Amino acid sequence: MTRSIPARIAAFRAQGADRFGLVTEEGIVDLTPQFEGRFRGLKQVIEAGALETVIAAGAGCRATHKTEEVEFLIPLANPEKLICVGVNFPDRNAEYKDGQEAPPHPSLFIRFPRSFTGHGRALLRPPESPQLDYEGEIAIVIGKAGRRIPREEAYGHIAAITLCNEGTIRDWVRHAKFNVTQGKNWDGSGSIGPWLVPFREAGQLDDIALETRVNGEVRQSDRTGRMIFDFREIIRYVSTFCTLVPGDILVCGTPTGAGARFDPPRWLVPGDVIEVEAEGIGILRNTVADEPC
Amino acid sequence: MTRSIPARIAAFRAQGADRFGLVTEEGIVDLTPQFEGRFRGLKQVIEAGALETVIAAGAGCRATHKTEEVEFLIPLANPEKLICVGVNFPDRNAEYKDGQEAPPHPSLFIRFPRSFTGHGRALLRPPESPQLDYEGEIAIVIGKAGRRIPREEAYGHIAAITLCNEGTIRDWVRHAKFNVTQGKNWDGSGSIGPWLVPFREAGQLDDIALETRVNGEVRQSDRTGRMIFDFREIIRYVSTFCTLVPGDILVCGTPTGAGARFDPPRWLVPGDVIEVEAEGIGILRNTVADEPC
Repeated sequence: MTRSIPARIAAFRAQGADRFGLVTEEGIVDLTPQFEGRFRGLKQVIEAGALETVIAAGAGCRATHKTEEVEFLIPLANPEKLICVGVNFPDRNAEYKDGQEAPPHPSLFIRFPRSFTGHGRALLRPPESPQLDYEGEIAIVIGKAGRRIPREEAYGHIAAITLCNEGTIRDWVRHAKFNVTQGKNWDGSGSIGPWLVPFREAGQLDDIALETRVNGEVRQSDRTGRMIFDFREIIRYVSTFCTLVPGDILVCGTPTGAGARFDPPRWLVPGDVIEVEAEGIGILRNTVADEPC
Repeated sequence: MTRSIPARIAAFRAQGADRFGLVTEEGIVDLTPQFEGRFRGLKQVIEAGALETVIAAGAGCRATHKTEEVEFLIPLANPEKLICVGVNFPDRNAEYKDGQEAPPHPSLFIRFPRSFTGHGRALLRPPESPQLDYEGEIAIVIGKAGRRIPREEAYGHIAAITLCNEGTIRDWVRHAKFNVTQGKNWDGSGSIGPWLVPFREAGQLDDIALETRVNGEVRQSDRTGRMIFDFREIIRYVSTFCTLVPGDILVCGTPTGAGARFDPPRWLVPGDVIEVEAEGIGILRNTVADEPC
């Protein structure tokens, strides 16, 4: 079976500068020079509704960089909002063993972009805790502003999709009375990428496979069709209370099987390789390193 | 007893443009023209460590605007981080009636700047809920970047202080399994301001009175000396997991007495006037209006 390869556009660093370009089988086509003075990065591209324009500009061009020689960055460096959905696959709720039914609304928390690194880089394990854990997720990037967006219009507000390893310092998630903020916001503890794939049709999200592997061993594997709150519902619900704007990122929840689930727990350690893969998007691959002193 | 009036610097809108200036007894001295090309707003001023420079530039100048004729904005429009501390006064923990001791670490949640309006403006009550509630708080603005900041150095990282009405849609705080995100992020439901006061000495924070009034009636009244986690501890703890940078805002917790505490609860309604006052900072005053359809 032949599947068409979707367009992929990445933010990357090469020759000491932040760039963006089209990722092809032959390498990366740097598009930064063509759009100089117009777009500083992919956030500006998304804000201008120009993702397809930029992709078209790169079609047929020769690669300027070898993929393995660039440093991938998180696709949008400074989104206005980066909202994550917790407990969004059926068995995840059961993992909490608190006897509660699945909640009627999504659990939401916020991460700062500083808590993420790009594809290919090491997730950082801090000296304060050995409990670095992975969570493979799909992230959507808003392309069109809206408030109180109806379900049926939700997909029209998505510009692109990407992957997230929503890396977590597990013991710090339960530090306080409420809220997981401090377990979810360690500098460089997660990753987003490797690139943006433009969102063109419902089939790219509706029921795709999502898998997380650690050193090749499958740890999480599920399909988005089983999400408790689907992508449309997340957009509808979040936009009830706040205006979504282009560049906002919604990270949509992880399947069962994080390291905390095992007995004893299996935390990430330096040298591990974690891969988050989803059909039609690609593979987000990261290693682990102790935070440098 | 004569008290010296601290310098106060505000972000405001006049003649259709966003400006910043020194607030004096005679009015506001617009400093935007003097720093054109250098600082677009107070975030850039803070990033440059130039708050005192800007204040000095306005000293002795004639007011350019009447205070009552400008529209106050939130002092920093786009901080990288805006982190709030929950349950930080002794009786607040008891209000939750869950039999739990005060937690060992602060409860932290994040708000987006979009959830705040400026001094003098109406807090918005959305059609989805009548449970708009006030929370008067002190906010600190980071002036110097740092990670793992020791308690004894914490005050050296503060550039300025201000006030926050951390307006909340109370029933949405408990919508989900964890996290208060959706009750704390309704567009225009809270306020920050009226201005920044440069932080010059410990006495400006260590044990000051903080009070919230609704239509003149005192609803919350306490002193920062009674905070469970003091300002130094908040900076120390938060900077353990993430790098604080200039312009970051930390909102430090509210005393007992929010509207939800009463039986029956006393929610805010259109026409109410809420004042948050703290010694040496000023009065943040807002009205309430139904969100326009």
